[in-house]
Amino acid sequence: MFESAELGHKVDKKTYDQQVPGLREALLDAQFDLISRRPFPVILLIGGVDGAGRSESVNLLNAWLDPRHIETHGMGEPSDEERDRPPMWRFWRLLPAKGKIGVFQGSWYSLPLLARVYGEIGNGALEKAMTRINRFERMLADEGALILKYWFHLSKPRQEKRLKALEKDPRTRWRVTERDWRHFRLYDEFFRVSSQCLRTTSTALAPWYIIEGADERYRALTFSRILLDSLRRRLDEPESVAHHAPAPPTPPRVDTLHVLKALDQSQSLSKPRYQEQLEDLQGRLNLLTRHAGFKDISVVCVFEGSDAAGKGGSIRRITGALDARIYQVIPIAAPTDEEKAHPYLWRFWRHLPRRGRFTLFDRSWYGRVLVERVEGYCSEYDWMRAYNEINEFETQLVEHDMVVVKFWLAITADEQLKRFKARESTGFKRFKITDEDWRNREKWAEYEQAVCDMVDRTSTEIAPWTLVPANDKYHARIQVLRTLCERIEAKLNGRKNKTKGG
Amino acid sequence: MFESAELGHKVDKKTYDQQVPGLREALLDAQFDLISRRPFPVILLIGGVDGAGRSESVNLLNAWLDPRHIETHGMGEPSDEERDRPPMWRFWRLLPAKGKIGVFQGSWYSLPLLARVYGEIGNGALEKAMTRINRFERMLADEGALILKYWFHLSKPRQEKRLKALEKDPRTRWRVTERDWRHFRLYDEFFRVSSQCLRTTSTALAPWYIIEGADERYRALTFSRILLDSLRRRLDEPESVAHHAPAPPTPPRVDTLHVLKALDQSQSLSKPRYQEQLEDLQGRLNLLTRHAGFKDISVVCVFEGSDAAGKGGSIRRITGALDARIYQVIPIAAPTDEEKAHPYLWRFWRHLPRRGRFTLFDRSWYGRVLVERVEGYCSEYDWMRAYNEINEFETQLVEHDMVVVKFWLAITADEQLKRFKARESTGFKRFKITDEDWRNREKWAEYEQAVCDMVDRTSTEIAPWTLVPANDKYHARIQVLRTLCERIEAKLNGRKNKTKGG
Repeated sequence: MFESAELGHKVDKKTYDQQVPGLREALLDAQFDLISRRPFPVILLIGGVDGAGRSESVNLLNAWLDPRHIETHGMGEPSDEERDRPPMWRFWRLLPAKGKIGVFQGSWYSLPLLARVYGEIGNGALEKAMTRINRFERMLADEGALILKYWFHLSKPRQEKRLKALEKDPRTRWRVTERDWRHFRLYDEFFRVSSQCLRTTSTALAPWYIIEGADERYRALTFSRILLDSLRRRLDEPESVAHHAPAPPTPPRVDTLHVLKALDQSQSLSKPRYQEQLEDLQGRLNLLTRHAGFKDISVVCVFEGSDAAGKGGSIRRITGALDARIYQVIPIAAPTDEEKAHPYLWRFWRHLPRRGRFTLFDRSWYGRVLVERVEGYCSEYDWMRAYNEINEFETQLVEHDMVVVKFWLAITADEQLKRFKARESTGFKRFKITDEDWRNREKWAEYEQAVCDMVDRTSTEIAPWTLVPANDKYHARIQVLRTLCERIEAKLNGRKNKTKGG
Repeated sequence: MFESAELGHKVDKKTYDQQVPGLREALLDAQFDLISRRPFPVILLIGGVDGAGRSESVNLLNAWLDPRHIETHGMGEPSDEERDRPPMWRFWRLLPAKGKIGVFQGSWYSLPLLARVYGEIGNGALEKAMTRINRFERMLADEGALILKYWFHLSKPRQEKRLKALEKDPRTRWRVTERDWRHFRLYDEFFRVSSQCLRTTSTALAPWYIIEGADERYRALTFSRILLDSLRRRLDEPESVAHHAPAPPTPPRVDTLHVLKALDQSQSLSKPRYQEQLEDLQGRLNLLTRHAGFKDISVVCVFEGSDAAGKGGSIRRITGALDARIYQVIPIAAPTDEEKAHPYLWRFWRHLPRRGRFTLFDRSWYGRVLVERVEGYCSEYDWMRAYNEINEFETQLVEHDMVVVKFWLAITADEQLKRFKARESTGFKRFKITDEDWRNREKWAEYEQAVCDMVDRTSTEIAPWTLVPANDKYHARIQVLRTLCERIEAKLNGRKNKTKGG
């Protein structure tokens, strides 16, 4: 893996001085095109061994390109706001927008790689982490990002020499820390683990480039030419090129059975029984938020359903039980322009709750496989890949002690018609009914198909869908509240047992 | 001040039940208009004594209105990311966008008020804090926000009774903490200090409403009627109403002397001398960032100047001396739609650096009094008030150990023409010259006037402008770097002496 990067590559001063001016001009040209002609996000990861020129390369980049459109992130210790969210949150919040170059020195590789080197995790966990990273980078690429991963390498004797030289010079002494020497003593292990990681994560869409770090001029030219070539190739590509296989066909419907039809819409609740149960469940929910263990978990609720299915009403029955300081309701409408400049999941990542809090999404990331699919706002390939991306997203939430509760509120077409008409005639509800609602009704069958596919592909053990027959509002609200309470209780009990067991 | 709120106001159940349905419908109607017809930000502050119904009122608001457009913030301990910025940063980042209702339980009043009650600060400091709050709220109002400040009051005997009742009921016992009783023992002092604060900060644009908290029904009706009336009044107002006095006239220019003309553009530097000094200064700057005290301060640099004055080049000479991980360059172009939905300073607050970091602004908040003034993008009243708002903003930065360094790069009209022509003929600089640049040139005199006013009004002792004659690029870059080094050194020395002295 590293053979070519231990050959002692060198560039003489004359060659370097000849090449640099043209290279810099070409880089600026490419960056200008990126900003103004064809913006996409550029993500550069900078890894490798200490002393091999990582910082120097990042600084060079900022010197040769226009630093106003480069965002450099040295990822140190996570802040407390970051620790409250899944580990990838800190990277999501820093993803560059279209037209920007985001440079990560210390990346999503650092944590698993060092954990393996230090022996804190085994090979299985490392492989799992790499699989996840592959999925993440694949998603970034599918969202249009150009990803380049640089690995700066030095052979063991060269690294030792380099660290000693740095240490000897009073101007650079500060750069060599005890941590660097500790890492050096683990060189062989570091070598072995990083080979393994690089091998399994160098893909066509997010390739690793290994650069020998010993010679400054060789390093600078190689580093910046890779960037230039990659930028240029992408910029000059015809707009229509697809970087992926055609989407697989959706499975045919052979009969007319489906999960929504199977729902029992005849269930109902009388008003007195509803009020009694509502009060009980709201009390139970409120108590749960004051449970000693609640400060360590958080809750993410997703509400999806046809127009007029009662999402807002169900949400209000939940918020009515909670102290307003511990929840946020996020209504999902058209994305803002900042949101449009990022991968589609970015706008949901940004609203994840801290520990001890709720976020209630009124519509959600499932828009991708519902309205965007049916209305053709994204390609078939895009919504097909979303199922996996969503499962991956929710897995990260659940692993970070978030309870993910997803409701589909189902009403029949007749019930919807009744509600639309009622809304039109009720003063303060008139704003809830628009022309778009009437238009969506015409695509009832297509939405139904999309919902069934969504449930089939994203109802997982860790984040199951709850399909709620909602023709009877009382019944629906009670089922929502009860499910929510049960899911939180299961989580709190699970954690308690885990603590006991360990 | 609190007399009317100790009378024992009460509403009987029948009256309450009669009024509530109409009130709720009217509130929903008003909120609908706010969201869809005439969006502006609504800011509600919730203060008062413990047990007087603050949380209940916030929860009621979320129950009666559409909670999807309400953002409720219980302001507890600041996070470490918040502690790294000036105290107001955590409020800025949570300001509601147009169309949203932002509710702050615990607000910018809490900290100074409690500090005074606990005797940690004196009356002078309290008054200073209130003056600042007045300025802040005035700015919010000028930016179109509707601000309502609620104070929930209980007389001393009633508060005692209320706390005891809450404590007795097992369902509410958890709500009464030792902190509440500690506050109760300080009731008289709390009463005195809050009277004083409320009196000096209840303004026409951000009024306080004191509500007796003893009777739940009275409280709910009063609270929500104030909100309804205020919303309705603002929503139904003609669009053209100005909530302020006419802007004062700008001082006349009687002669033709001004600060830009007074600059000595004949200063220059030979290339060898430049390179020598550049290397020295970059080394000096780099060393400063590794000074032990640097981790406690941060640096905010502002670059303003005519087109082609060399802002980008100066910025690159600074970033060239820094590790790319410790700075961000923020180029200021047209605001995004999220930025447009907030006060104009919001987009700068969001980029303030953490401790130990630099933010370099390529153009800045001064756009308000330069391009926005000259091009008429905002009203005269708006740019006139900006001088004060900017001074206030920078004061907060400086008080939080940020070094604020502001450069105006000045070139003459002839020099600009020369550079424009050169840019047009240089391949990779061609993108730096646009039609807009040529148009701006036609308003040279107006821009010059705006710059002189800006310097007169915002060059303060704590955040002075450095006017840099920039016809000679070498001279300009050296002056920029030297000024920056000196300002950081002065800050580091000042802090050291402060520590020694204290």
